[in-house]
Amino acid sequence: MIYLDYSATTPVNKDVLNTFIKVTEDYIGNPNSLHKLGFDAKKLIDASTKQIADILGVKEKEIIYTSGATESNNMAIFGVVRKHKNRGKQVITTHLEHSSINEQLKYLEDAGYKVSYVKLDENGHVDLEDLDNLLKEDTVLVSIASVNSETGVRQDLKKIYQVVKKYPKTIFHSDVTQSIGKEKINLEYVDLASMSAQKFYGLKGSGILIKKENFEIEPLIKGGKSTTIYRSGTPSPALIASLAKALRLAYTDIDEKYNKVLELNKYLRERISTIDNIHINSLDNSIPHILNISVDNIKPETMLHALEQHEIYISTRTACSKSDDYSEAVYELTKDKNRASHSLRISISYLTTKEEIDIFIDTLIKEVDRLKVLS
Amino acid sequence: MIYLDYSATTPVNKDVLNTFIKVTEDYIGNPNSLHKLGFDAKKLIDASTKQIADILGVKEKEIIYTSGATESNNMAIFGVVRKHKNRGKQVITTHLEHSSINEQLKYLEDAGYKVSYVKLDENGHVDLEDLDNLLKEDTVLVSIASVNSETGVRQDLKKIYQVVKKYPKTIFHSDVTQSIGKEKINLEYVDLASMSAQKFYGLKGSGILIKKENFEIEPLIKGGKSTTIYRSGTPSPALIASLAKALRLAYTDIDEKYNKVLELNKYLRERISTIDNIHINSLDNSIPHILNISVDNIKPETMLHALEQHEIYISTRTACSKSDDYSEAVYELTKDKNRASHSLRISISYLTTKEEIDIFIDTLIKEVDRLKVLS
Repeated sequence: MIYLDYSATTPVNKDVLNTFIKVTEDYIGNPNSLHKLGFDAKKLIDASTKQIADILGVKEKEIIYTSGATESNNMAIFGVVRKHKNRGKQVITTHLEHSSINEQLKYLEDAGYKVSYVKLDENGHVDLEDLDNLLKEDTVLVSIASVNSETGVRQDLKKIYQVVKKYPKTIFHSDVTQSIGKEKINLEYVDLASMSAQKFYGLKGSGILIKKENFEIEPLIKGGKSTTIYRSGTPSPALIASLAKALRLAYTDIDEKYNKVLELNKYLRERISTIDNIHINSLDNSIPHILNISVDNIKPETMLHALEQHEIYISTRTACSKSDDYSEAVYELTKDKNRASHSLRISISYLTTKEEIDIFIDTLIKEVDRLKVLS
Repeated sequence: MIYLDYSATTPVNKDVLNTFIKVTEDYIGNPNSLHKLGFDAKKLIDASTKQIADILGVKEKEIIYTSGATESNNMAIFGVVRKHKNRGKQVITTHLEHSSINEQLKYLEDAGYKVSYVKLDENGHVDLEDLDNLLKEDTVLVSIASVNSETGVRQDLKKIYQVVKKYPKTIFHSDVTQSIGKEKINLEYVDLASMSAQKFYGLKGSGILIKKENFEIEPLIKGGKSTTIYRSGTPSPALIASLAKALRLAYTDIDEKYNKVLELNKYLRERISTIDNIHINSLDNSIPHILNISVDNIKPETMLHALEQHEIYISTRTACSKSDDYSEAVYELTKDKNRASHSLRISISYLTTKEEIDIFIDTLIKEVDRLKVLS
């Protein structure tokens, strides 16, 4: 099996799973309970929170545990606009966001909010001048992901933040799900950041929303105080300790792992660029873990299933995308509907080998030839 | 160690944890992915959903996976009032609900909703006549838990449902978290039902909202379609298969396990009733898994920590309660603020032994004597 869909989800690291097992067996209390078993579970959560805060360079009280990035994204948008509803009715975002952002924003539009989409330049970057023009006194929130999940295009959070903060009350949220654990990320330049353990070899069902301490949000999931007042429900010490473990492991030798992926990406690009009728959509500034390509005249689903026969797994779009016609993210980069409707995402890891890439490319060439004859 | 706090959370069944481990190791794909690894993960989820649906007597499409009962409760209330906001502005509930219900309702009140609290009779049951009087054409939702988590008092969901359905469009939600897995429950008489795996020897971080198919709700956590359109985010095959496993195990010999708890409860009541200055607050109709008592003149926290020294774990209130003065649930039953501010919850399981109860009672007697002298 050759797994090249790491950006959809990562296999779980054995040590992360072992942490989950150990905590489940050893900590049976409800962390909200007042007795020692509850207190022990709470202490473990607090220790995990400290580790996570140290790694991410934020304060412990700035960490809100969630069920994943989708909940974090929903909480960020809902929480800001509801808490600060008197501040304004405009939200700024891009056409590159995850469905969990887009859907919340659709409901906001129905509720009378104005959602503005900032232009991107030819490199897929947010056009800072356009952002500056769109920003108004009543812009309550700007939400822009750090890395687009389909094309890997990175945004410069610091530059965006600096423009946004011309209006100090405007809150800047970033979905950093596709950055975290892949490369170091500076969370100094965001007010809110969403992430999910399942993208860095952790367990599905656990994520974080970072919320800086200097402003408030309305909880999405309300109730009694849990690890924070912003998210109720019995926290899972096992999921939280596993998330901390996954993050620690991801940050161990993170630069070396990044450089390995960078080398693999270069090799992948080199080999792909020699194949006729295949175009690389990802840009030089894309994160090397993601390579988006388009294959002329072959439907992405057909290509995906052809490779699947060889136990090679890639992705057409992102796992959670909705629209079926074409990739908006690829269109934004290429302005070519044909390429945008024939795109495939290859996503690699430090676990990927050069041999896997060779087999993938050899198979890709064969299958493209075979399917061309058929079409 | 003697654990008598099973209603706060249950230890995880070994077989449930093994299911989690096996699925985590064997199913690495994102269930939303289009390739075989995604499809395999999706198939496992579907098989789990079928098992759960069969056990609970509902349809597969009526199952929405959540992160736990708190999310389910929030989704139920938010989802109904937002989707049916033109239908009316009244919600009916009781003073016995979980903090995740109460807090959502507080926000609704701020948004102009009228929240009516139905009276309870001397047995802690919903006064059906009062419910009938409160119900109006514009009552959008009635939310009443099947079992109160502090006192164990049961409600008759069928009778409540029949009164509610004089207004066929009014939706009836029940938090069945304290029923499920303890005794068979008929979900025919609810429109929505919340539950959490961690109360039936499953894993924290996973729960369900049952939503009957004949009406719609607005998703709380929005995004792309996942296992349903009502809750987005990458589902965890491991958490879902573990939930199905926990439910299957809970329903295995459920009557025998119930009867064992009933016997233990009788024995516990007998022994406690011989102790001076201790009152039993739970009623005959309380679920036998929960016994609420009050100890005169000794603060509940003091009692809890005294027992903790002997590695005996009980609860003062519920783990997620907010108000610090007295127990509203106990007050509703006793109309006695003193008893309501001195209440303790003992919660037992089919895993509890008569020997554990003997040691608990002997220790309780000793500690009550010791603390009386001190006070």
